[in-house]
This record gives sequence, structure tokens and C-alpha cells, in this order.
Amino acid sequence: MNVVQNLKLFFEPHSLAFIGASRKTAAKDGDTNPVETMLRDGYKGKIYPVNPNASEIMGLKSYPSIGDVPGDVDLVVISLPREGLIKAVTECVQKGIKAIILYSMGLDDGEDDEGKRIQAEAIRIAREGGARIVGPNTFGVINAFNGLNTYWAPMYTEQTIPLGAVCQSGIFSYRSWPEPPAGRGRMVGKVLDLGNLGDIDYADVLEFYESDPQTELIFLHMERVKAGRRFLEIARRVSLKKPILALKVGRTPEGARVVASHTGALGGNDGVYDGAFRQSGIIRVKDVDELDDLIKTFLFLPLMKGKGVGIIGHVGGIKGMGTDAFISQCLEIPKLTPDTLAQMGKLFPSWIKPFNPLDTWPAGILHGYQESTEALINLMLSDINISGLLFVVWTVSQDEYKAWDATQIAVKAAARFPDKPICTWGYGPDASGWRASLEKNPGILYFNTPERAARALAALHHRWRFLRETQSI
Amino acid sequence: MNVVQNLKLFFEPHSLAFIGASRKTAAKDGDTNPVETMLRDGYKGKIYPVNPNASEIMGLKSYPSIGDVPGDVDLVVISLPREGLIKAVTECVQKGIKAIILYSMGLDDGEDDEGKRIQAEAIRIAREGGARIVGPNTFGVINAFNGLNTYWAPMYTEQTIPLGAVCQSGIFSYRSWPEPPAGRGRMVGKVLDLGNLGDIDYADVLEFYESDPQTELIFLHMERVKAGRRFLEIARRVSLKKPILALKVGRTPEGARVVASHTGALGGNDGVYDGAFRQSGIIRVKDVDELDDLIKTFLFLPLMKGKGVGIIGHVGGIKGMGTDAFISQCLEIPKLTPDTLAQMGKLFPSWIKPFNPLDTWPAGILHGYQESTEALINLMLSDINISGLLFVVWTVSQDEYKAWDATQIAVKAAARFPDKPICTWGYGPDASGWRASLEKNPGILYFNTPERAARALAALHHRWRFLRETQSI
Repeated sequence: MNVVQNLKLFFEPHSLAFIGASRKTAAKDGDTNPVETMLRDGYKGKIYPVNPNASEIMGLKSYPSIGDVPGDVDLVVISLPREGLIKAVTECVQKGIKAIILYSMGLDDGEDDEGKRIQAEAIRIAREGGARIVGPNTFGVINAFNGLNTYWAPMYTEQTIPLGAVCQSGIFSYRSWPEPPAGRGRMVGKVLDLGNLGDIDYADVLEFYESDPQTELIFLHMERVKAGRRFLEIARRVSLKKPILALKVGRTPEGARVVASHTGALGGNDGVYDGAFRQSGIIRVKDVDELDDLIKTFLFLPLMKGKGVGIIGHVGGIKGMGTDAFISQCLEIPKLTPDTLAQMGKLFPSWIKPFNPLDTWPAGILHGYQESTEALINLMLSDINISGLLFVVWTVSQDEYKAWDATQIAVKAAARFPDKPICTWGYGPDASGWRASLEKNPGILYFNTPERAARALAALHHRWRFLRETQSI
Repeated sequence: MNVVQNLKLFFEPHSLAFIGASRKTAAKDGDTNPVETMLRDGYKGKIYPVNPNASEIMGLKSYPSIGDVPGDVDLVVISLPREGLIKAVTECVQKGIKAIILYSMGLDDGEDDEGKRIQAEAIRIAREGGARIVGPNTFGVINAFNGLNTYWAPMYTEQTIPLGAVCQSGIFSYRSWPEPPAGRGRMVGKVLDLGNLGDIDYADVLEFYESDPQTELIFLHMERVKAGRRFLEIARRVSLKKPILALKVGRTPEGARVVASHTGALGGNDGVYDGAFRQSGIIRVKDVDELDDLIKTFLFLPLMKGKGVGIIGHVGGIKGMGTDAFISQCLEIPKLTPDTLAQMGKLFPSWIKPFNPLDTWPAGILHGYQESTEALINLMLSDINISGLLFVVWTVSQDEYKAWDATQIAVKAAARFPDKPICTWGYGPDASGWRASLEKNPGILYFNTPERAARALAALHHRWRFLRETQSI
């Protein structure tokens, strides 16, 4: 059994045992209980609580030990103090179990040698028996596609997304499902919390996501990585097929020191990561705003095949700011072709010569905002020099200002030009209302600032260029 | 009459005439109409529509010319094609009017010499008569304190804030009221749109805001500035009393070119602005996310009197990221005093030594999350090395996870330590729910990322240091 097959058991177990299952309930004790959460959320596999002090947990029969569980068990979660680990892992191996999650803390992450010894011994026993370990010091795994959730927290899936995430800190997993586009449900894909990286490492999970048909985009939250060369080789191969976003914590020496104290190992020189990531095609994000933006960008927008961005909007005052944003991202605000400009010119007063970035206002006064903006966006996106668009919306309240319906304009443009990414950015007193109106449509994303829109389009263009240069497309 | 007295007429007119007032209504024509909007929003001054083709506008008597209006008029808005400007301005001056807003476009911003000539002539006539002009090519002025709003858009004030803004593009004014803290009403202060900078300039408005008791924080949206030396001298003086935020558009050469095409003048070398702003105590913001953050930060948080930040939270996994964020902003995550550490240690298991950044989780398991976090935050904020705090909240749904009430913890801490700014940052599937719960309390701000929280605290510390070094405090 190779590690990808082991990982399939972690993500898609038909049966699951919790050694050290708790009787605490969310309602009574505050903390949620994964057995309770999974039953509620409709996980379809079998769940076996293992706890010698209980005969029943959450309405399920509880077994004194894993050896007493009837039938096969694909995945075991061990939630015991470290003193009981070796015995539990040994019994798992004896039962033929190949996938073990170790919740337990105080091992490699603890302050004494005993924890390190127990961790090493548990992993040795597991590996000899053909089992692989996620953790210790982990929340385990979430798979929104089948309701699997070993975390001590609910999942709230309203929409499954093809995102495969790997984190090194349980809490971080929660940022691997981004704030959903406004007006759409919470989005969750797959997440694995690696914890102390005792056994299973980033490279292993990358290989699993590489072959997983439900995963189209990968996110890594990293504090440190083991076996760096293998990781980078695999990342290079996988990134040719699926974009890999990485948030590497420990950018500053101080941050790296804190990371070390949390995971029990050095974070490594940050500059090395920067270069290595770039060479492997990994897209490094610097914070969770960028992470949110790029997850949505890669999930919902097409790649951008050229450098040229069109900026079009209701008012002139934002054009300078928009231009700044895209130029800073090494994109271009190109001239439009003479033919495009001639056709646009017909919609403007004779004393105004249209150009990119394009202020649609004077055309709107002459021909109506709705019609003229639709026509001008079509001309802009038909231009050979334009590969992506920023549509600037004046976000006056839709209840009060009925001069146009910008959402319809954006939706039509996205449908007509599916190969050119369209970002929207709003400007006015009711930005949140417009954001919701725009984003409830698939294929339309809204950004708080032109800088964030520019960053998104730049990522789509760089991805396209990376694939082109590596001859993957 | 000095320019500050003129500006008082712009912001606080007892009577207001609209030359070229329109009969269009928002309900019927889409575009809003300032006469209609102001009547609805309860502006208390007198409004005189002037339009020779109407006898009544929005239920108000309309006059054929400004000379026909009975009684005094403090402020006139002229919304006429450029051909009628000279005559209208002349009549205003004859009536003794001292404050004129010129909506009209196609002047210095137009493509022919005629526009420039008309603008110069109109300003000459006004100045000779003791009148000052805002614009041309402007939306005019908004003052949420008295319902004045000459914009072609509604204002939506639910909460007046002591923010005085100056913009060079009508549309930009709408970002001078930031997205309100979640759960609180829309916030508007004062805004002036300078348009073409024909007469009234940034320095003038700065002087007005300097002496305006309703203004505590100033925001400038700048594309270019005239009379740079006077502006910088006044900014230097005003910034000793009130913080000045500036968003200078045209950072890139391409952006600066676009700005020039919009306002009819060169934007100037961006690097020069950077240095000059710093010397004048102006706080430069780079985008509207930062603008939103810093407006709220200066309005709602106290200055930070030292460099030391405490990070405290529910989970260890975010500490590295938080540390990175503050170190990158040249703040420090200092060691706590031995006394603080000894007192904290009593709440932790013996095998964990607390330190900053502080993971409260193990203490929570022993003593309850609520009690232990309250105690630890009090100890942290009492420490002499700590001048500001990042409180990291695990944003699991409040309906499902009742182990603690982080909002109460934050509120109590803010009340107990009013001299130390507290930022919150949330981590989990229900960030927006927690954001609303936290921010509805004055004095509590929530940031999407630790980087944004760090930027806010850095601004509060730099402001304190600036005042200290200039001996203003």
C-alpha cells in the first residue's frame, strides 16, 4: 500500500473508530464532539466509539478496545493522553488498520524527551505494520464531500468546492474555506491538519490531491517542511496540473522562532522558501486576505491569457487609482485598437476621445447608462489587446438609484466572454449591497480595492504563463 | 473675509440656491436630484431653486435668476453648461454671494482653450467680488451634521463622525465614509469635492478643518496639489492637532498620466509626495482597505504609547503569523516581566511556561476558557512592556460553541485599559458573525488579518511618537 492509498483511507473511510471518544455534547459542555457533529452532518460511514468507561456514546454502542470492534475499520482517531498511545497504536496495527490520526499533544511538541520518545515509538510501530499516522497534535481531517469531520468544531458546508487544503495547525484549517462570495453558501472542500508532521508530510498529501478527481486547487498552510527536496519535486509536478497556493508562516526571524516553539522544529530561512516556491510553481500568498481572494479567483475565474487589462467604469475619478494598481502588478493598461476606439467614439460626445481606462459617464448621459455600458464593455472585451477586465461600479443604493443594473451588465459580459476574467470593484455608499448582488452570480467576483482585483488578475496571468512556459497548455 | 470664513459658508450655509436646478426625480429618472435629496434628509436651511423654465421645483418656488431670489443666499450651486457660467457668476457676485460651487464640466478639464478661458474668467470675477469657488467639475459638499448634500447621490447618514474629508473626484468622496464597523450605522462626516482645483485648494480646506470643532480626523484624496509649499506648511501645523490621512493617486507613471488626463494637470513625481508627506506628519495610505482601517482606528482606538504588542488567543497555530505581522510593521512582541509570567504560570499546567504570544488554550482546559482568558488578558495588559493587544478569537459559531463569550472578554478589557488599543482578529468558520458581535461595541475593532491589525497599531504608535517628538503631547 503506497501513501496515496493510505491517504484515501484518511479522506474516504467506510468505517471510523474514535479511541478515547467523549460523552461531552456541544449543548451541555460548549466544546463540540466530532462523533456528535458527524452524526448530525450525515456522515454515511460506520462510526465506532471506543471507550472502556462507556457502553454507549451519542447513541452508538461503545467498545472497550479497538480489538473488540466487529468488522473492518478504515480509519482510527486516537484521543488519549500520551501514556496510552503506544498500546493503542499497537492494537490498531494488530487489527490491520492502515490510517491513524493522533490527536494527542505533549509529544514532539512537548518540553521533555519522553514525548519525543513516545512519538517515535508509535510511528515506528505503525510503519512496521503498514499503517500511516497523521499528527500527533492534530485535529485530523475534513471532507465536505462525504461529511467526514474529525475536528472538534462544526463544518457548516453549504457548498462543496474542489479545494484540497493541508494545514499545520488545526485552527488554520478554518481559513482554508474562504469567506464565500456574498450571497452564496459556505464553501468547504477537503482539509488535512498535519500537526507535528510526525509521519505524513506535505509531499504525501500533495500526491493524494494530485490524483484526487474532487480536487482542482490546492492550498498549503506551512510552518516548516520536512524532506524539502522531495516536497519541491512533487510540488513542481503537481503544480503543472493544479494550482498550489501556499501561506508560509514565519516570514520574520521572530515569527520563525515562535513557529519553532509551537511545532518543535525550526522554520527554516524564509528567503529559501520564496525562491524554491517560485521554481516549483507554488503561488505564495502573504496573508489570509490574499488567500481568500486567490482561492475564489482560481475557483471561479478563467486564466488570463495576456497582460492587457481593460478598466471601464462609471466615473473618471477612479481611473488613476485603477491604473496604479495594475501597473504595480506588472500588468498593462494597453491602448485599444483604432477600430475599437472608432466604434466607441460613436457613443461619446464629439469633444471626448475614448481611451483605456474608459470613463463611460459621458456616453451614459447621451445614450443611457445601461445600454452604453453594455456596448462599451462588449467593445472593450472584443479588443485583441484586452485579456481581462476591471468593471468599476458606482455603488449607489439599488433602491434609490435605478439608472442602471450593473449586475446584469457584468453577468452578460461574463457569459459572452468566458475566456477573459472579469473583476468588479465598487465605489459608493452601498458597496456591500452591490457586492452581494454581483457575487451571487457564478463567474462574477467583487474586490474591495483595485489592488486586490489587480492581484487576482496577475495571479491568473502568471498561472497561464507558467503553464505556457512549461508547455502544460 | 478669509478663506476659512468662506468655507464656513460652504459647509454651514443658512440658505442655498441651485442655479440650473433640475425637475428630474430619483423615482422617475434614476439619477438623484440634490434638491430632492436634501428636502428628504431634513436640511434645515432655506433652498432656492433657480431655473427660468420652471415656476416650482420639488414643491419649492423657483426663481428666474439668482437676482430674483428674496433675502440673503450663503451658498450657490451652479449647474449650467459652460456658456452660461460667466453671467451666472457675475450675478452671484452682484448679489453679494461669497461661496459658489461650480458643477460644470468641460472647463480646465476640457480639450479646448475656451473652457480654460471661461474657468479663469469666472474665478477672476468671483475673487474680485470676495467670493470663492469650489470646482469646477465638482459634486460640491456634504455635511452630515446639518443635512447639507449638493451631490447627485444620497448620503445615508446613520451616525455622524468627526471626519473631515477632501476629495478631488466626486466618486471618491464615497470612500471617505468607511464601511462602518459591523452592526453599527453608516457613518458620514464632512466632505468637499475640489474638482478641478480652480480656486479653493487642499490647503484652504485643511485650515477650515483645523478650526472646525466637529472635525477630529482629516482625510485627503489627492491627484495633484497646487501651491505645494503652502500646503505642506499648513499640513505640518494641522497634523500636530489632528491626524491627516492621505490617499495620493498616481503612484505609477502610468497612473499619474491618467490622473493628468482627468484633471487637466500633471500629477507630479510620486516619490516627492512620499517624502514631503512624511515630513509634514501626513499619514499616507496606499489603498481603500487601509483607508477604511485607519479611519476607524483613529476614530475608535486610543494612541499606542509604546512599541510592545501582546498577542493572546485561543490557539497556538496563529502565533507565528501574528508575530510576523507585527514585526513587519516595526513593532515588537516583547517578553513579559517575570512577575507577569509567574502570575500567568499559576493558570497553566506545570509543563507549559507561558510567554508572549500567549496560547490560552491549556489554561482554558484547566480553568474554563472564559475565566482564564479574562485573567490572562488582564495580566497581559497590566504588563509594563505591553502597549497594545491583538486578541485572537476562534470564531466558531456562537450558536454552537458556548464555551466562552469572546465579546464580553474584549469589552471588559477595553473598558479596563482605555489607554491601550485592543484589536481583535478572528479565526474560524463564523468570522462575520463574530465580527458583528465584537464591533457593535464602541472601542472594539475587528480586522480580517493580523497584518491589518498590525498596520492599525503601528499607525497609532507612529502617531503617538510623532506627537511626542514634536512635543505636541
